[in-house]
Amino acid sequence: MATLGIGIAGLGTVGSGVIGLLRRNADLIEAGCGRKIGIAGVSARDRSRDRGIELGDCRWFDDARSLADDPEIDVVVELIGGEDGVALDLARRSIAAGKHFVTANKALLAIHGTELATAADHAGIHVGYEAAVAGGIPVIKTLREGLAANRVRRVHGILNGTSNYILTAMREHGAAFEDVLGEAQRLGYAELDPTLDIGGGDAAHKLAILAALAFRRPVDFAGVHVEGIRGVTPMDIAFAREFGYRIKLLAIAQAGTGGVEQRVHPTMVPEDGAIAHIDGVFNAVVIEGDAAPVTTLIGAGAGAGPTATAVVADLADIARGVRHAMFAVPGPELVHRPTVAIDQRQGEYYVRLMVIDQPGVMADVSAILRDEQISLGSLLQRGRDPGETVPVVMTTHEAEEASMRRACERIAALDTVTEPPVTIRIERV
Amino acid sequence: MATLGIGIAGLGTVGSGVIGLLRRNADLIEAGCGRKIGIAGVSARDRSRDRGIELGDCRWFDDARSLADDPEIDVVVELIGGEDGVALDLARRSIAAGKHFVTANKALLAIHGTELATAADHAGIHVGYEAAVAGGIPVIKTLREGLAANRVRRVHGILNGTSNYILTAMREHGAAFEDVLGEAQRLGYAELDPTLDIGGGDAAHKLAILAALAFRRPVDFAGVHVEGIRGVTPMDIAFAREFGYRIKLLAIAQAGTGGVEQRVHPTMVPEDGAIAHIDGVFNAVVIEGDAAPVTTLIGAGAGAGPTATAVVADLADIARGVRHAMFAVPGPELVHRPTVAIDQRQGEYYVRLMVIDQPGVMADVSAILRDEQISLGSLLQRGRDPGETVPVVMTTHEAEEASMRRACERIAALDTVTEPPVTIRIERV
Repeated sequence: MATLGIGIAGLGTVGSGVIGLLRRNADLIEAGCGRKIGIAGVSARDRSRDRGIELGDCRWFDDARSLADDPEIDVVVELIGGEDGVALDLARRSIAAGKHFVTANKALLAIHGTELATAADHAGIHVGYEAAVAGGIPVIKTLREGLAANRVRRVHGILNGTSNYILTAMREHGAAFEDVLGEAQRLGYAELDPTLDIGGGDAAHKLAILAALAFRRPVDFAGVHVEGIRGVTPMDIAFAREFGYRIKLLAIAQAGTGGVEQRVHPTMVPEDGAIAHIDGVFNAVVIEGDAAPVTTLIGAGAGAGPTATAVVADLADIARGVRHAMFAVPGPELVHRPTVAIDQRQGEYYVRLMVIDQPGVMADVSAILRDEQISLGSLLQRGRDPGETVPVVMTTHEAEEASMRRACERIAALDTVTEPPVTIRIERV
Repeated sequence: MATLGIGIAGLGTVGSGVIGLLRRNADLIEAGCGRKIGIAGVSARDRSRDRGIELGDCRWFDDARSLADDPEIDVVVELIGGEDGVALDLARRSIAAGKHFVTANKALLAIHGTELATAADHAGIHVGYEAAVAGGIPVIKTLREGLAANRVRRVHGILNGTSNYILTAMREHGAAFEDVLGEAQRLGYAELDPTLDIGGGDAAHKLAILAALAFRRPVDFAGVHVEGIRGVTPMDIAFAREFGYRIKLLAIAQAGTGGVEQRVHPTMVPEDGAIAHIDGVFNAVVIEGDAAPVTTLIGAGAGAGPTATAVVADLADIARGVRHAMFAVPGPELVHRPTVAIDQRQGEYYVRLMVIDQPGVMADVSAILRDEQISLGSLLQRGRDPGETVPVVMTTHEAEEASMRRACERIAALDTVTEPPVTIRIERV
């Protein structure tokens, strides 16, 4: 069969990784696909930059958009990034031109995924985005194909390696957030502008995509509740340990009778569970279905090799003639299901108060919790220091988020409480 | 598109589970495939047995083999089991008749996989066997497609849920093998004849299939070194804990310069690693590649729902027109690579000796180890009891299996050693 011609837009770490992998394992890939995958064109901002790979025989396109118009290109691979601009132009133009489209761009799909899915249906082309979620972990393939017969109840996981690296280092070394972030930046595990990673936005992009695929609904990024890890303190990590938990930036999408919950936030997870042991830059995704109860995938969530693995897997599928609707079913069959507001979350909570150590404080706090029908699971007060500020930590039984928020507002207003209460959701995953 | 007609041979737990799942999630499956999957015929030994599912509208075939000849059947689903007999007849006849073939039968593929792969190539049909390895975990799809661009270095995992259940219960309750086995049989987690599970044969079947797919070589079941868990004692489980390990029945296939190692045996794994925490009936597979360094899949390795999930995933692929060579590349491209004998294994070992507590014993043992160039990593002797038999346990640095075996034979011959030494391989997975 004829060589599959691909055009690569963006020659950063991932783009160079894709070219390197296609060359290094060309024999393996060709044997598995029954045809060659050839680089018919490349585009990047700076032609002269040394990328550690030989580009001599590749046709160069100054404008990435023009890859969409080239007759030798069957698949456009977008590795530029960004939710709009050139990446969006290229996606629209490639699909309209009837070219398959492969991307690692989670922001693009989180914002424009439904539009692109509908366009892809009309054009009869395949959009591959395995690399956009959890790097080398084949979670898109697993949800769309491996678990195709399952009605998914919940998908959750650790989707941002930078945040997980920071939380892991904080736990292991008892270090403060800012110190670990600085170290991570020096080592290249965190970007100089880490907002998207530590703020939870990157995980939220990925979660919105997973939720669309798992629940076969239009992508609803705006409906993801997002909290990052900047507020996690060594003190809370230490108390988590005392209660038998670890703190992870967990992304959760779950379907219930009221609609779909989508949220990303620091979460206490039981330390004897699998998710608690996903450390460093690793990612993990847990899929709960009606026939296969729990399937867990763990692997490298970023990096040139893993991400290139996912890009080339999509290319190999296209080379073999595989065509899927982007979110498992054609665009018109994606059924809108309402997003449940965070206020309606039902679950357990960890609460840390900084209180003046004097009689009566706990009576006031307890009365407020009682008024909001929140009952305590455990309470811990370490050390006494009459008249000084000390931490009091507790965990609640299942309560509604709105009640919890009201209770915390009233507790914060007590004279004996010196700082706003810290709450962290507990999930028994 | 026309309904995909399937014929199901075997209506035990899995067969009934497949019918139940196809009916319960028919909407989901049809939306994902773009066509219906319909049951065009069924066959089982006993027509009158109550299986808890309605078979009224299914055409009944007294002889499973005749499913292969029916013009309404596009795919034959073999859920009979057994490496020969009807299952093998049905596989050959279905493929020869140009029908796609889906099976959960690991024994059949471990023994006849290469023959069937070649026949499938000639007939141009797809053989699906996701259900044959690790139940609901999509490991076949991941190796063949998700990691298609990776040169796999090693695949290892926990592939037998019954053995893992027994080892987990022994560890948690300090119980003896026979007691836990009896309990597992009462609960239905172990068969009345558990030989294939606890003897390691079932895991070996699965490993041989994984090794063929991962390394693109003919299936070599005869080349799998197999040891079961019957010899694992509570004493060794307790010592493992002291050294920071847990004992798992690990299946390992790895490619090296000398060929491919394939082995299934009780193994000490570090208790801070992921594999150590796969407990009960769960399965796990870890795939190490050159681009995606480590990908781990965890899930239910057996049971009606998970296994039916895998069967229907294969059917959905066939319904969508997906066709793959059975072991990723066509039969003639499967390259024979020699299987490395267990004697050549290089690794660490745990050794437990039962010795008479008297001066000079360790001098004799140490001299033998020195002669075989085996060096000790650690040594533990708990309690003294002069003149009586006491356990002495040690771990070695990396050594060759053949040296280890010779050393143990010489140690066993010492007058002061009262039982044959127990050795358990250590793997830093």
